[in-house]
Amino acid sequence: MTEHSLWRFSRALHRAVNERQFDDIEALIDEDVDWTLHGPVELFPFFGARHGKAAVMQVIRQIASTVRVHRFDREQIMLGTDQAASMLRYSLTVLDTNKPVRVRLVHFAQFRDGRLVSIRIMVDSHELVEQAIFPPYTRMVAVSA
Amino acid sequence: MTEHSLWRFSRALHRAVNERQFDDIEALIDEDVDWTLHGPVELFPFFGARHGKAAVMQVIRQIASTVRVHRFDREQIMLGTDQAASMLRYSLTVLDTNKPVRVRLVHFAQFRDGRLVSIRIMVDSHELVEQAIFPPYTRMVAVSA
Repeated sequence: MTEHSLWRFSRALHRAVNERQFDDIEALIDEDVDWTLHGPVELFPFFGARHGKAAVMQVIRQIASTVRVHRFDREQIMLGTDQAASMLRYSLTVLDTNKPVRVRLVHFAQFRDGRLVSIRIMVDSHELVEQAIFPPYTRMVAVSA
Repeated sequence: MTEHSLWRFSRALHRAVNERQFDDIEALIDEDVDWTLHGPVELFPFFGARHGKAAVMQVIRQIASTVRVHRFDREQIMLGTDQAASMLRYSLTVLDTNKPVRVRLVHFAQFRDGRLVSIRIMVDSHELVEQAIFPPYTRMVAVSA
């Protein structure tokens, strides 16, 4: 039984983010990949939609320059032949501030010949806002009104 | 070929929310259901975790008292025998204010004998905050700092 593409992709992605080793993940991304990381672009520049391997590799490098992953728990998972969806809970450190952050995200991914051809990721960005990791100039605070 | 449990559940849920007809959905929820709607409880009281049919029916009634669904697009879907995961984009009206709201959510659902036994839903709550549908006393604003 062959290993599902998701596991190889997940290991390579975490290696890229934590060790800045990008070769493994680059080999697992299709040239024509569609990538969307739903979230507020004003929070981090790597949120948003990208097309093509070069643009996606740039996003992964930006993420690697911004956070380290301490642990993640895969709370939900569905695997199809070439598809996978998960809900994950991450414990991260934001490198700038050394601040620990916990955040939940989900992804829907599609693979072809073992390579990622499309992924949509949704981050619970309200959690990020609550943990005040917005850059100062756009920080959100509760006010009476 | 039998219809997947998700479709019956989805129709019944939308009927409950939009027409306040709760009988169909009640018949499709297991007595021992585990239900989590990840999101900020200070935004709406129906966010959070619930156990058992009575508690979940109360949440559905609260949602029906709060919003109407105008349309939804199922952007991503994975179906297993008794499982389903989707990413959906909703156009809603908040009844209090008659304010239109667009929001993305994902769910992972598990069915048994056609009834829902567990579901985890994640709402892009930052989108909600940005659309200023927080009650005024907790409204969030961007400030310089």
